[in-house]
Amino acid sequence: MAGFKHLVIVKFKEDVVVEDILNGMQKLVSEIDAVKSFEWGQDIEGEEMLGQGFTHAFLMTFEDKQGYTAFVGHPCHVEFSATFSTAIDKIVLLDFPSVVVKAAT
Amino acid sequence: MAGFKHLVIVKFKEDVVVEDILNGMQKLVSEIDAVKSFEWGQDIEGEEMLGQGFTHAFLMTFEDKQGYTAFVGHPCHVEFSATFSTAIDKIVLLDFPSVVVKAAT
Repeated sequence: MAGFKHLVIVKFKEDVVVEDILNGMQKLVSEIDAVKSFEWGQDIEGEEMLGQGFTHAFLMTFEDKQGYTAFVGHPCHVEFSATFSTAIDKIVLLDFPSVVVKAAT
Repeated sequence: MAGFKHLVIVKFKEDVVVEDILNGMQKLVSEIDAVKSFEWGQDIEGEEMLGQGFTHAFLMTFEDKQGYTAFVGHPCHVEFSATFSTAIDKIVLLDFPSVVVKAAT
């Protein structure tokens, strides 16, 4: 699915229980209709030089930028973000309209 | 689509013609069957603090880790990587089996 993407890559603090964060995220995306799809993963290649310590990627898809804006301003997101920000050591956010070059069949 | 993901986020060097890179990437994914889907985007939010200078995200999907391994070892990828690596100022790679929490409908 193309649409507008919200990509978050993080390195969590050492004492963080990632499962708790994931549970919160699952609840979040189930509560907010504007989130059309959500997938995540934990790096398994462990190329430390090229991962720069980042371990997890989270990718949400919205129909368009308006959907993303609605998500960002949603009270559940605001609340979740406050918790999330205390759990992370490093973060990079990228938000972009997705260009699909080769589509899954 | 779930599968195995290869996520690349980069900041290009200033004198790089991104369109040339993209053309090369499009050619690459069209040549390698193991790449099941490919999408990319350029950050438009420009939250410099949280983007850390990264501007582009590239996301490829493979059926499984074997597909990814085939891609990495493919001569076209090896050739492309050599060019790509001269164009980048910063890069983060994450490779992971994707967990789909909410699927696009």
